[in-house]
Amino acid sequence: MNKKILVVNGIERTLIVDQDALLSDVLRKQLHLTGTKVGCGTGQCGACNVIVDGKLVRSCVVKMKRVENRATITTIEGIGTALNLHPLQQAFISHGALQCGFCTPGFIVSAKALLDVNASPTREEVRDWFQKNRNACRCTGYIMIVDAVMDAAKVLRGEMPASNLEYKMPADGKVYGTCYPRPTSVAKVTGTWDFGADMGLQLPEGTLQCALVQPEVSHAIIKGIDTSEAEKMPGVFKVVTHKDVKGKNRITGLITFPTNKGDGWDRPILNDEKIFQFGDAVAIVCADTQEHADAAAKKVKVDLEVLPAYMNAPAAMADDAMEIHPGTPNVYYELNVKKGDETAPIMAKAAHVIEGEYYLQRQPHMPIEADVGFAYIDAQERVVVHSKSIGIHLHLYMIAPGLGLEPDKLVIVQNPTGATFGYKFSPTLEALVAAATMATGRPCFLGYNWYQQQTYTGKRSPFWLKLKLAADENGKLLAMEGDWSVDHGPYSEFGDLLTTRGAQFIGAGYDIKNIRSVGRTVCTNHGWGSAFRSYGSPQSFLASESLMDELAKKMNMDPLELRYINCYRPGATTPTGQEPEVFPFPEMFDMLRPKYKTALEKARTESTDTKKRGVGVSLGIYGCGLDGPDTSGAWAELLPSGDVMVGNSWEDHGQGADMGTLAFAHETLRPLDLKPSQIKLCLNDTSLVPNSGPSGGSRQNVVTGNAIKAACTLLLNAMRKADGSYRTYDEMVKEQIAVKHEGSWTTPSTHMDENSQGNPFCIYMYVLFMSEVVVDVTTGKTDVVKMTTVGDYGTITNRLVVDGQVYGGLAQGIGLALSEDFEDLKKHTTLIGSGFPFIKDVTDDMEILYVETPRPEGPFGAAGVGEGPLTSPHVAILNAIDNACGARIRSIPAYPEKVLAALKSPKKSFDVSDAVAGGYMSQGGIETLKK
Amino acid sequence: MNKKILVVNGIERTLIVDQDALLSDVLRKQLHLTGTKVGCGTGQCGACNVIVDGKLVRSCVVKMKRVENRATITTIEGIGTALNLHPLQQAFISHGALQCGFCTPGFIVSAKALLDVNASPTREEVRDWFQKNRNACRCTGYIMIVDAVMDAAKVLRGEMPASNLEYKMPADGKVYGTCYPRPTSVAKVTGTWDFGADMGLQLPEGTLQCALVQPEVSHAIIKGIDTSEAEKMPGVFKVVTHKDVKGKNRITGLITFPTNKGDGWDRPILNDEKIFQFGDAVAIVCADTQEHADAAAKKVKVDLEVLPAYMNAPAAMADDAMEIHPGTPNVYYELNVKKGDETAPIMAKAAHVIEGEYYLQRQPHMPIEADVGFAYIDAQERVVVHSKSIGIHLHLYMIAPGLGLEPDKLVIVQNPTGATFGYKFSPTLEALVAAATMATGRPCFLGYNWYQQQTYTGKRSPFWLKLKLAADENGKLLAMEGDWSVDHGPYSEFGDLLTTRGAQFIGAGYDIKNIRSVGRTVCTNHGWGSAFRSYGSPQSFLASESLMDELAKKMNMDPLELRYINCYRPGATTPTGQEPEVFPFPEMFDMLRPKYKTALEKARTESTDTKKRGVGVSLGIYGCGLDGPDTSGAWAELLPSGDVMVGNSWEDHGQGADMGTLAFAHETLRPLDLKPSQIKLCLNDTSLVPNSGPSGGSRQNVVTGNAIKAACTLLLNAMRKADGSYRTYDEMVKEQIAVKHEGSWTTPSTHMDENSQGNPFCIYMYVLFMSEVVVDVTTGKTDVVKMTTVGDYGTITNRLVVDGQVYGGLAQGIGLALSEDFEDLKKHTTLIGSGFPFIKDVTDDMEILYVETPRPEGPFGAAGVGEGPLTSPHVAILNAIDNACGARIRSIPAYPEKVLAALKSPKKSFDVSDAVAGGYMSQGGIETLKK
Repeated sequence: MNKKILVVNGIERTLIVDQDALLSDVLRKQLHLTGTKVGCGTGQCGACNVIVDGKLVRSCVVKMKRVENRATITTIEGIGTALNLHPLQQAFISHGALQCGFCTPGFIVSAKALLDVNASPTREEVRDWFQKNRNACRCTGYIMIVDAVMDAAKVLRGEMPASNLEYKMPADGKVYGTCYPRPTSVAKVTGTWDFGADMGLQLPEGTLQCALVQPEVSHAIIKGIDTSEAEKMPGVFKVVTHKDVKGKNRITGLITFPTNKGDGWDRPILNDEKIFQFGDAVAIVCADTQEHADAAAKKVKVDLEVLPAYMNAPAAMADDAMEIHPGTPNVYYELNVKKGDETAPIMAKAAHVIEGEYYLQRQPHMPIEADVGFAYIDAQERVVVHSKSIGIHLHLYMIAPGLGLEPDKLVIVQNPTGATFGYKFSPTLEALVAAATMATGRPCFLGYNWYQQQTYTGKRSPFWLKLKLAADENGKLLAMEGDWSVDHGPYSEFGDLLTTRGAQFIGAGYDIKNIRSVGRTVCTNHGWGSAFRSYGSPQSFLASESLMDELAKKMNMDPLELRYINCYRPGATTPTGQEPEVFPFPEMFDMLRPKYKTALEKARTESTDTKKRGVGVSLGIYGCGLDGPDTSGAWAELLPSGDVMVGNSWEDHGQGADMGTLAFAHETLRPLDLKPSQIKLCLNDTSLVPNSGPSGGSRQNVVTGNAIKAACTLLLNAMRKADGSYRTYDEMVKEQIAVKHEGSWTTPSTHMDENSQGNPFCIYMYVLFMSEVVVDVTTGKTDVVKMTTVGDYGTITNRLVVDGQVYGGLAQGIGLALSEDFEDLKKHTTLIGSGFPFIKDVTDDMEILYVETPRPEGPFGAAGVGEGPLTSPHVAILNAIDNACGARIRSIPAYPEKVLAALKSPKKSFDVSDAVAGGYMSQGGIETLKK
Repeated sequence: MNKKILVVNGIERTLIVDQDALLSDVLRKQLHLTGTKVGCGTGQCGACNVIVDGKLVRSCVVKMKRVENRATITTIEGIGTALNLHPLQQAFISHGALQCGFCTPGFIVSAKALLDVNASPTREEVRDWFQKNRNACRCTGYIMIVDAVMDAAKVLRGEMPASNLEYKMPADGKVYGTCYPRPTSVAKVTGTWDFGADMGLQLPEGTLQCALVQPEVSHAIIKGIDTSEAEKMPGVFKVVTHKDVKGKNRITGLITFPTNKGDGWDRPILNDEKIFQFGDAVAIVCADTQEHADAAAKKVKVDLEVLPAYMNAPAAMADDAMEIHPGTPNVYYELNVKKGDETAPIMAKAAHVIEGEYYLQRQPHMPIEADVGFAYIDAQERVVVHSKSIGIHLHLYMIAPGLGLEPDKLVIVQNPTGATFGYKFSPTLEALVAAATMATGRPCFLGYNWYQQQTYTGKRSPFWLKLKLAADENGKLLAMEGDWSVDHGPYSEFGDLLTTRGAQFIGAGYDIKNIRSVGRTVCTNHGWGSAFRSYGSPQSFLASESLMDELAKKMNMDPLELRYINCYRPGATTPTGQEPEVFPFPEMFDMLRPKYKTALEKARTESTDTKKRGVGVSLGIYGCGLDGPDTSGAWAELLPSGDVMVGNSWEDHGQGADMGTLAFAHETLRPLDLKPSQIKLCLNDTSLVPNSGPSGGSRQNVVTGNAIKAACTLLLNAMRKADGSYRTYDEMVKEQIAVKHEGSWTTPSTHMDENSQGNPFCIYMYVLFMSEVVVDVTTGKTDVVKMTTVGDYGTITNRLVVDGQVYGGLAQGIGLALSEDFEDLKKHTTLIGSGFPFIKDVTDDMEILYVETPRPEGPFGAAGVGEGPLTSPHVAILNAIDNACGARIRSIPAYPEKVLAALKSPKKSFDVSDAVAGGYMSQGGIETLKK
């Protein structure tokens, strides 16, 4: 510990620092400059970028001994403030170059460092800079960020007035459908949007810091937990185990179909009898400091009997596999699709029949912000949990019984969230911090490090798929047969639901009258399955959109035209037998076709012997809503100031719930002529707002959008006088008219029947993807050089938000296709190790086209957005690889070695080791080796 | 504990707060917005002012339950930042409207709130606003603050360009002698100048919070200390008592004259055998949080035998008084002045003889920032103490033996300091935090609350004075006899030194050839005596400058002219027989005379029956330096960048050590043509810089100014090439010439002899004061309506700094004359209770004139500043009261009731109860009542 003077943001600060302390910790925990965010904590993500003596550094890996005395440090707080935005900050806002905002300060600081040394960078130089400095963004796809930097540079060079970067309200005062910047923008670009870890530093004195005890094994029997040594460690307040959990100590999956062989009560809060997967926690050490908690956690002794671990679906389905949850078969759910006639006879005589086998990997969500939250007991004696939850009411009911709480004694609040992409559809640490607070009576804070984020939160569940299509001589599809096994990890929650997505989306987009399929949910010992953007559809379309290309190839037909003749037109039905609500595909194909032809020509002329260029297309569809009837609530309240407050639980991953709520409320309330700033948002606290349902399945824009519209309409109606003018707040009070109105809305959807037939969603999103790739056939490496997409998301609520969602989805599609995986428990635990797409992995050339078909049920015609762009971009890429060089990749990611192998020996099927190549497992997918 | 959303500085923040928590704590400890300073903690000082929903509030008394959800809060951080200063901030800088900077954010926030509702306030409206909102400043005297607000308002109204507020460097690049703003200004106006409490919030995890156990009694025997119950309280790490202190457990006064009857080892670190005064600490509770420490401190049981407490010098000098320090007489030091001939014969035959008796109260320093500091063990195994110390090397040697540390194992660092005015010449909590850290091994933080600041830090020691003057028929002084008793409280440190000040300054300014006096230091049980600005001179001049007026009155002579004929001219000597180094008084009187005549005329014409206007003058003198030879060191180092770093221990109360160091270094280094920003300051860390001596006695500007000049000259000489040009850093290294040079300087002063004769200082400051007052003879209330001063401080180092020192000194003089006291242990424990001068107590009409006589020994001709303005302004006020209404006030402060009493029955002497009227004591000054 030594005195060190740092010149921080122009001001000399004297600090007492440990020479081994990290600069990021000193900035955040000592100087309380929480604008510097810590993501990965290992120097891979750039969220913590600051400028030290003119040099950009990743502060999470810089020890204080490396920071010179009197070093000059610039953090986001020193670049600009809410009252004095730097052009970079203004440009990020006006370009919508931010979503969750977690990486934003790091990007802005990084860009500042670049422009300090290069005032006129090219786009490619900007990209090179962010690549070199590892600025990672998981939300935006980078293009809008580069746009922002280029514009800010223009302003800084004096080539453009700064006012060009400010949003100008249109003359008609409209917000809906414009590029109005999201309300949280200013906080996000200034580093004052407080994420969970930031709020953790703002908790009252006496807050305990938690550390988890996680035996590093995938399957074991717990024979004993000895906390005695840990309890004696310095600063330890209590070591909490399953014995301290007052309720059932289980998180319930809630939604289980009657045919499910499990009961949904299989996920422990703190593991008591068994360890089911790597990362499972058996204890929480609560101490005065994180350092003390971490040190004591190492002293908890866990006596284990290690069992063979079944690390994928085939292994767990083997005849001799033991039941992971004793009493429940490892295949715990199975469904059938029966649509139209029996398919076997059709297959037997069809002109063209084709089949294929596919594997989609355990894609990790990789938010830059690791999971984080805290709990405390409030003045009403309720346990209040703050977390990244994207389903606050859902989670309340999932964890209350396990904790032994009546639902009215539990409150869940969503913190500003550094993205989830769906993993927070599952509760993660919510129950743990609640249990810790209940056991200690004190506020408890728990933040995962990025390793824990990766190993101990849900993942996209791998699908093992087999698919067969029959078509007539013209390519018109006649029948489909499918079989898919979902590796859902050890915990059942929503596993059955996910499995139904195969029934809904395999073959979706095409009018296939006859289907026979079977899908199943398999319990394994690998990472548990949680929601991930486009939930179930990337797996589904991997099969059907790959196989469509294979069919076209076999028929020597253009794959776009094969799709075109089969796509939904009036009279067509979905795989679940539903009539689509709109039919935009023919128009969309017509828009894409000329671009496709140009791309094909470019591929033909630009391919070389070693660098083969190819073009691939795919279509994608996703429903907006939960499966079946889906309800949301919201309220609108007239305030004494004349402003209106809108309350709902439209949880925000970063996708733009703030903007959505504002846009729908503002549009509905237009007769009141309110400025956008007059609409106040009250969001995401179960004690304050109604249940709007979780933020998943692109449902909120539709379902909660309609609920907001309903609430605001009720308020308007109450305010309206006979002469058509509107009452003031005082007039309402005087006339004893309620100023707060709750609205709700329910989809006219139905659950699917036992044949997986029904109308599960009332609105769908329709998307086309075209990918242009260059494959280096000497190395197998694929570069995606351009992505084009045509999307119909209904009317567009906010153009910046929708563009951002599309760019971001495409970037994740590139990662899904080429690099991302969570299979190897050693290798796949870092951003880089897991194949995170950095800026140079994501093409700067993306073209987005929209068809805005108003949806009859959508609020102001809107559908959803988020899931659409990630339904099948990866398949367009795989199809482009095949188009380029003839390598058909059936199990992804399409690592270079897989492409090389496919070039050498094309095959139609593959074994487990192909699918999970490079993995941690011993053969057959059963982990028996101890670390 | 509940969730609360606050819109802070334009950004919505979600916090978890206790409803009983204070807003200031939430802002500082949870949101880490430490720009909001907490001074008194009781809503009396305005340092914590913030704007809540448009209304200015004192955040230290606002509980969170009174802050509405979604309240809009503006703190200093939201007004402007270093990169984007608000016009108010710029104006405070350019007007020098800040010294220590502790009250500055509160003033700026307050002014912002005013200008938000009144864009064009008059000066009086500004003053009314600050009065109403209790913005207290102890340093500046308010005028420069009002100037700044008026100018900022002009800029905000668009009547003046903002650039007018920016400092323009003169064409010659000179800094010395200009209005260059002090280097710490920007940090101070933006709230980023981190004081001890702010740094406390930036300490590493694991820092312990300390609470003192202070039995509330003034004199007692300690029979036992039981910490067992406290040790068991939540969060308690250790309760430290005298048993844990490794060394002698005493703070040594170091400087004791051989004739002192004490040994200087009388102040315990933690009291062990006796309680000597109210506030003495017997234990330190070290806990995880302040709340826990405070709660446990209440559980320490102290078994006491209460003794009679001697609360002033007459009581302690009584024959039957017990020895407070057994074995040492209560009168522990006595000195004699013998100059010239025996005085008795002269008195016997002089034309005019006059005598008087006077009492100057225990003036409290009343910094807005209470004492605060912390300690830790550094990587070199040294105990490092950070505090408000204004004598870091001095304190090191005063506390090391008591702690049981070798001096090289102790480091003292001065934190940014919210003013001391001298009380930090004594160590306060330095030894306590060091003892706590040594006993716990952990960093320990201790902050006094304002009550502790007032009751448990040193005070200005009361003097009980008797004085007699003889003059010839023309008023020429012939002889003086004096007797003074110094109530120094229970601890001897520097008490003998203070007593010598009477020998040096009673009668100073006049050529008195024959003096016989005696002074003594008395041990009492009231607040211990520590240094206070102008140390010993306000007491000295109270006697001689009052008596000069009485003499003039008796002679029916103009009091200014009586002074004029007696003042120092060549051939005169000081009371210690020294020849003054310069003789500016005649010129100064000539400057003042026309203003004095105008004032007299104004008083004559404007007096009414009930409101009597009067004019009073006084002179003051103070030496620059410690008594006798005084040495300072400094170094200058050429850095690789070509910048020069200057190191010294010129501790800063707020008086401007930063500016002084910069000005002297810049001026000396002018051949290098450095920009001011190229001179880096390394200040106030005993491990890094040489001993420049303490910041007291206006010595630093002279002694350290010369040392800086010496160091920079050595560096210049080393850099100079044969051709007169200067070597670069690289050239120096190449030629193996040292780049770091240490300079030192020692005054050519001598210690006084046994007759108190000698040349203790080589440079003096000379000041004249004129006060114009209005006395309401119906109430006795005195208003000071104008203060005029003519000062000779040598050449002026920085005009803003010197003006600020003068304004501030005059304000403290008004408080000293009329309202300030620390006598009553119940009443005098708050700012308001102690008579703190708020803005409306301090006239807005102050006129400052300078005579700049270069001092032969001064660096660039400079003398000191700080003490000059507080030598005798209070006496000018007392003389003006007498001039107005004939009431001669002999014991101050001149409360209205005292003025009324003096009007009713004038008397020449007084008893103890007159002097300490309204006090806490029972009669005779012996506290025997238990609370």
